[in-house]
Amino acid sequence: MVNFDQVWTRHLLLFVVILIIYFVSEARGAWQNSVKAKVVSKLQEHKVDKFPGNQTHSDHFKLLERDGNYLLVGTKNIVYNISLATLQEKKRLEWFSSEDDIKVCRVKGKSEDECQNYIRVLALKSESVLFVCGTNAYKPVCRDYNQTENEYKYVEEHSGEGLCPYDPNHNSTAVFAGPINHRTDGDLYVATVAQFSGADPLIYRKPLRTEQFNLKHLNSPNFVSSLHHEDYVYFFFRETAVEYINCGKTVYSRVARVCTKDKGGPHKYRNRWTSFLKARLNCSVSGEFPFYFDEIQSTSDIIEGFYRGRKSKIIYGVFTTPVNSISGSAVCAFRLDDILETFDGPFKWQEDINSNWLPYQNSKVPEPRPGQCVNDSRTLPEMTLNFIKDHTLMDRAVPAYWSQPLILHTGFGYRYTCITVDPQIETVDGSKYDVLFIGTDTGKVIKAINAASASSDNKVVPVIIEEVIVFQNQAPVTSLLVNNFAFQLKLIVVSKDEIYSIPLHDCERYALTCSECVALQDPYCAWDENRQRCTSAEPRGWLHGKFVQNISHGWDDKCPEDRHSTTSLSVARENGEFLLC
Amino acid sequence: MVNFDQVWTRHLLLFVVILIIYFVSEARGAWQNSVKAKVVSKLQEHKVDKFPGNQTHSDHFKLLERDGNYLLVGTKNIVYNISLATLQEKKRLEWFSSEDDIKVCRVKGKSEDECQNYIRVLALKSESVLFVCGTNAYKPVCRDYNQTENEYKYVEEHSGEGLCPYDPNHNSTAVFAGPINHRTDGDLYVATVAQFSGADPLIYRKPLRTEQFNLKHLNSPNFVSSLHHEDYVYFFFRETAVEYINCGKTVYSRVARVCTKDKGGPHKYRNRWTSFLKARLNCSVSGEFPFYFDEIQSTSDIIEGFYRGRKSKIIYGVFTTPVNSISGSAVCAFRLDDILETFDGPFKWQEDINSNWLPYQNSKVPEPRPGQCVNDSRTLPEMTLNFIKDHTLMDRAVPAYWSQPLILHTGFGYRYTCITVDPQIETVDGSKYDVLFIGTDTGKVIKAINAASASSDNKVVPVIIEEVIVFQNQAPVTSLLVNNFAFQLKLIVVSKDEIYSIPLHDCERYALTCSECVALQDPYCAWDENRQRCTSAEPRGWLHGKFVQNISHGWDDKCPEDRHSTTSLSVARENGEFLLC
Repeated sequence: MVNFDQVWTRHLLLFVVILIIYFVSEARGAWQNSVKAKVVSKLQEHKVDKFPGNQTHSDHFKLLERDGNYLLVGTKNIVYNISLATLQEKKRLEWFSSEDDIKVCRVKGKSEDECQNYIRVLALKSESVLFVCGTNAYKPVCRDYNQTENEYKYVEEHSGEGLCPYDPNHNSTAVFAGPINHRTDGDLYVATVAQFSGADPLIYRKPLRTEQFNLKHLNSPNFVSSLHHEDYVYFFFRETAVEYINCGKTVYSRVARVCTKDKGGPHKYRNRWTSFLKARLNCSVSGEFPFYFDEIQSTSDIIEGFYRGRKSKIIYGVFTTPVNSISGSAVCAFRLDDILETFDGPFKWQEDINSNWLPYQNSKVPEPRPGQCVNDSRTLPEMTLNFIKDHTLMDRAVPAYWSQPLILHTGFGYRYTCITVDPQIETVDGSKYDVLFIGTDTGKVIKAINAASASSDNKVVPVIIEEVIVFQNQAPVTSLLVNNFAFQLKLIVVSKDEIYSIPLHDCERYALTCSECVALQDPYCAWDENRQRCTSAEPRGWLHGKFVQNISHGWDDKCPEDRHSTTSLSVARENGEFLLC
Repeated sequence: MVNFDQVWTRHLLLFVVILIIYFVSEARGAWQNSVKAKVVSKLQEHKVDKFPGNQTHSDHFKLLERDGNYLLVGTKNIVYNISLATLQEKKRLEWFSSEDDIKVCRVKGKSEDECQNYIRVLALKSESVLFVCGTNAYKPVCRDYNQTENEYKYVEEHSGEGLCPYDPNHNSTAVFAGPINHRTDGDLYVATVAQFSGADPLIYRKPLRTEQFNLKHLNSPNFVSSLHHEDYVYFFFRETAVEYINCGKTVYSRVARVCTKDKGGPHKYRNRWTSFLKARLNCSVSGEFPFYFDEIQSTSDIIEGFYRGRKSKIIYGVFTTPVNSISGSAVCAFRLDDILETFDGPFKWQEDINSNWLPYQNSKVPEPRPGQCVNDSRTLPEMTLNFIKDHTLMDRAVPAYWSQPLILHTGFGYRYTCITVDPQIETVDGSKYDVLFIGTDTGKVIKAINAASASSDNKVVPVIIEEVIVFQNQAPVTSLLVNNFAFQLKLIVVSKDEIYSIPLHDCERYALTCSECVALQDPYCAWDENRQRCTSAEPRGWLHGKFVQNISHGWDDKCPEDRHSTTSLSVARENGEFLLC
């Protein structure tokens, strides 16, 4: 007689061994700091909330804005207002293109699906006024809406040219910012593409824009994100590198900035930025021949924390190698002060079309220095404005804080697509770690920590806690958001057609013993010596002294098992639903 | 009671499944034409001959020359003359450095191991005269030896400066070539490094050399191979790309050539090449942003065959990505005619230090065109000689024949190190394939075919037949050589410390049925319908009509099993000694 239990045990064992071999083979001979996840897991359905959207056609979800405990999601002809806590729809804004607009769009050769109104830009002008832009069947339009408790009321319409792309798939980014950081009196800053053909990329705030068709301003850019901080709005994007043209065609990652006080220049400069500057972002593995991850895909918000012994503001970014190359992804962090310093450094310039791009001699830069924030840009001299027109690129690249990628992944398994950060999570010993959530193009979410964030030296020891299979259909993750509103601690995971809300941590599921709990190196999890279980802080504070945790080493001799051994265990549980390596 | 056989069967099954998972995961989501080997095998000891060398210290084997059925191998203080058929030593040439030379070397701070005489250059001046150069304790020296049936007799000594490196680890290459292709009256062409510090790389044939310390001639080169063909000697190497300096530091692969009739110029040019030109080799995956394999590691000899419908001479090369990057290797082929055409194309030049590198206007190139083979180079005008001094680099890169890599491998498993080719193997249907043997830095040999070599179109369908684990200690394969002397059909595999001779094919071992035999896609193997076994041609000719073989598809409906299915089988045999995927 065959024992059914035995057969299954054997199957399970086989599966586990295969997975171990698989992950060991992934890490084998690894380049620099390529590491494997400690836990590989599937979702537990009862712990997941889902917003399925319209299930009959593709939604092209775009996470637009967070309004307190609610999320505004732009899709085809609809803005959904959904609760962050439950992912239930609270209300919706429906806006269809007129039949005339659709007819013209169809005549121009676009498909029925393309000739819809995809909502791509949204800003809260005030608590009650919503500014919304849609592709409107390849004829972008913006509208003001008044919102009440249960509905949205149409107020008025404006042209959407320069504010919203024609093509729903174009990567645009927008941020609402006031000159004095006051929302009701603010402006919309957009990086998008104008014209039906998509040939005119621009960074725009009415009426100022980057120079049209000037490759030194923008050269086939792919916009990734925008941020407002103090006097400046920052844009992150990748574009064809004009300074590289003599060496071949390549894409570089950039950060650009404009001043919120910019009023344009006098006369012919009245519709042009006087403050537009850009610089390369350097996310590379150093060496005699550095290896660059050149294509930025996503950034976090500005994260404020204590790093390398001092308070700093940093931005995390996801970078990849080009599509036509051996696949690699990396997470780098950039300090806001380093970005500012780069913009205060030398300009890059090319004397004539056949010259090399070189640093511009600082002593020759006109006064007032071009690209600064001034009180009235309309009084700037011609010399400064002429200079900024052709010298938008800084000579130095912004160096990555910690000088190297914090996390990297190579191989054809997947690429990173986006990142969000739960910043400065306090551990039992009082040190603080940034927890990184990284989406992949195969529907996974990687949970990692910036282990360097709690260390005073410059050493990067990458720690990947978990790899969660979120979308079974392998849909790429397009956005991530940490919902820590009222300590609900959920991670919002967005794909083109679905939104999931999953737990930020699940300490007890993955660790049954003290040493397993400590081996996770998860700042959310510690071993509760009284209750003898792996638990998380409630609400986000530890009662010091009763918990065992060791994020930097992954073992602690307070654990009985760890008194004899410094290596973590290899245990598999729950029928292959997750694997603890 | 436990059945011992059953336990082992299960273990075997487990092992096989793991291997399958492993190789599937390697190939998963593969970029372009990354493919897996059909057979992964270990050596069968009784089919392998070995030359172990000295087993007490490292030998630094270097394959120097083939003399009929014998192989000359340079090592520490010795040249071994070993039989290709048996790998038995026939005779040896011993040459130790003098005690004085060793003393001086030790005083200069080199180790005892470095202060030995490593034989790095060897040429057969005639059937009886051997020209040998050794590092001679960091004071290179060359000697003539007379060889008799059983021994070598010292004749005379010359300085080895410029002919042999100081450092035994330096990559040098040398070829003996006559101006009229006549060995007894020939010259030694060497690409190596002069000076104790290794700071002076050069391509040299007494008395002509490349310009000293001129980065436009040679910029930190790593020499790979040299070939003599008709009027020219070709050198393959990688070096820091001078034309890329404004875009960062990178390495490019090059082919350079000098004319064997070159006599140097008049006056100040009397010790300089008048014919030295070089060009970039382009081994890349095309795309809007091409992906380059920039570091050449090895080349084959010149292979003559029928490709794309016409007779051509091609050279296969192994290229890799840089060490500090995501690991990738590729095999590209270059047609001799394309190399010649590149040398006849525009020159690249830089007007001044801050200019871009651009094509030089053809109409401005002086006459006679610099870099050509002329009867008396000493009569060349000043203008031509001045031009060639600063314009050694061609503007265009030599394109890969078939426009792309023929075989490529990505991932951290291994890198390709070297290649040899058994050319134009005739199959049952009369078409001819080049069989490629590629060494790796982990002691493996990959057996692949250039499937495009028998097809008239430009399509590349990579076929990897076998991956053989040759060196159990994972020692990098440094050279490969096909021994088809007297139809012995062996592959000579060289590492730093060992030389193995292994079978070129083993049809019967890997395939027991017709469909398995055909699925191998091995030009050496066909299914013998009479004898009902997978067999090889003897000696290298097929009795047409009785054999089933289909190299391009890997299946044939003449096989009974294949009449119903077009997929090959997954079978494992011989206790994991090899795996048929």
